[in-house]
Amino acid sequence: MPRVSHIVVDWGTSSFRLWALDRAGAVLGERRSAQGLAASAAEGFEAVLEAHLEALAIPEGVPVMMCGMVGSRAGWVEAAYVATPAGLDGLTEKAAHVPSARRLIRILPGLAQRGAEGADVMRGEETQLLPLLRDGFEGLACLPGTHSKWVRVEAGAVGGFATFMTGELFHLLRSASILAPAVEGAAAVDPGSDAFAQGVQDGLAEPDMLGNRLFRLRAAWLLEGVAPETALARLSGLLLGAELAGAARFGGRGPVALIASGPAASLYQVALALAGIASVTTHDAEACVRAGLHAAAVSAFRLERISA
Amino acid sequence: MPRVSHIVVDWGTSSFRLWALDRAGAVLGERRSAQGLAASAAEGFEAVLEAHLEALAIPEGVPVMMCGMVGSRAGWVEAAYVATPAGLDGLTEKAAHVPSARRLIRILPGLAQRGAEGADVMRGEETQLLPLLRDGFEGLACLPGTHSKWVRVEAGAVGGFATFMTGELFHLLRSASILAPAVEGAAAVDPGSDAFAQGVQDGLAEPDMLGNRLFRLRAAWLLEGVAPETALARLSGLLLGAELAGAARFGGRGPVALIASGPAASLYQVALALAGIASVTTHDAEACVRAGLHAAAVSAFRLERISA
Repeated sequence: MPRVSHIVVDWGTSSFRLWALDRAGAVLGERRSAQGLAASAAEGFEAVLEAHLEALAIPEGVPVMMCGMVGSRAGWVEAAYVATPAGLDGLTEKAAHVPSARRLIRILPGLAQRGAEGADVMRGEETQLLPLLRDGFEGLACLPGTHSKWVRVEAGAVGGFATFMTGELFHLLRSASILAPAVEGAAAVDPGSDAFAQGVQDGLAEPDMLGNRLFRLRAAWLLEGVAPETALARLSGLLLGAELAGAARFGGRGPVALIASGPAASLYQVALALAGIASVTTHDAEACVRAGLHAAAVSAFRLERISA
Repeated sequence: MPRVSHIVVDWGTSSFRLWALDRAGAVLGERRSAQGLAASAAEGFEAVLEAHLEALAIPEGVPVMMCGMVGSRAGWVEAAYVATPAGLDGLTEKAAHVPSARRLIRILPGLAQRGAEGADVMRGEETQLLPLLRDGFEGLACLPGTHSKWVRVEAGAVGGFATFMTGELFHLLRSASILAPAVEGAAAVDPGSDAFAQGVQDGLAEPDMLGNRLFRLRAAWLLEGVAPETALARLSGLLLGAELAGAARFGGRGPVALIASGPAASLYQVALALAGIASVTTHDAEACVRAGLHAAAVSAFRLERISA
């Protein structure tokens, strides 16, 4: 691949995604694996990265821009958090330098919020936001996930944000709680189901009753034999509805830029509509992180000069 | 122990408590173990019970009244739920008969709620309520636990109830979530701490922000190095505050009978005061379940005749 200009990597707690890009950001090759933080720390971060580069026949000297938990304290090299409010330029300038004899390697920092809105952190999502910042978006960005982020974007910068543990609560409750038998065997949540919609509406209307409505999923299973798919959709809806109730307190009612991929995108689209948020645009999360990494790479590596 | 009139047993998911009582309900002997449901099912329920009775030299013929998960589908003999509204008499009359060649053995049923207030169940707590029903209490009963119960007691009966998963969420979050490192090593929650009080107030004021405030415990640990004891007290306070916000919706502001033992009693007393509930009386949970079982035994076994 002679036209490869730079490599971008999204390296998280449980996954590794790498793309080889040309100068315009077009994808020339990619690698995906489950080599998250723990696995990679044992094997050696550089060994993991170089093995993937070798598989794509990427020569020495091609620079690498990364983001995600690889820049955390437990990662390769710590990229210290940048404080909010934070714009596009600050992130690239503060990228951590990773020592390597083979190539330039940078890790973008995460964002930290302190002060009146409360301590909060993100690492990886800030890179997904870069294309929005560049394009002049103003409003709320919603990034669903294990720890969903709601971000206030104003004047080309991240003004503030709030993380909700929705995805992790869903995982804990479905797999390790007394609700597990009631949802056992259910594969996925149907975003079009009545059960999901009812859950969202209940969570939105009475977030203070969440702890009770969760237990009632078990009671409905015991007393009424509710099907696992129905119980799982209610569980998902309840947690998502409660998150949207909190997000409304955090950042009002829109416009919302939904940055999501796969099933999460459909679920949040349905839930945002039920919450009465009229203006929602959906952006593919993977395309966003790749575009954000590309913009950072162009800025950091002054690609024109390198490839000249 | 020649004066033993009857035996009462509270047999739950993870614990076994047995008392030998005289005709007036005074305790003549007791046994405690961790032989909960799973362990006892493997060993055999009758073998477990008779071993404890033998250790107290209880002869054949002395009857046994039990409550708790031993009467669930996964227990010894299923005691089918009694529907709310339910009074004192209904429970005793519907006790399940356990076949035994040695003695009369009964298991009190749990309560099931259906209809507008939503499906809910309890098993074991109904017995703790029996003394309150007998004494003519009117108001809300609060029974903290893995699954906390809030019960509307009216006209000598259980009118309705709501279960909150507070205790189980606390356990899951402190041990199996991303918050675990932030609370690692913290022993217990200090009910008198500012951190607990602040958590309760935050949970009460903004239950819709619970998912966010939980994550912020991690952020505060990362950014500010908050001590594990402080983080654990905030976590406990947040969950308890959110429960009280929901309980206010369920049943208003009191009077509240708090049926609790040990640390839970102190934590709920502080939290109820912070919620502005003026009239709270605390009842020892163990004394209540023993008194409830005794009352049921007297009624079911017509002790005067048996012991005549």
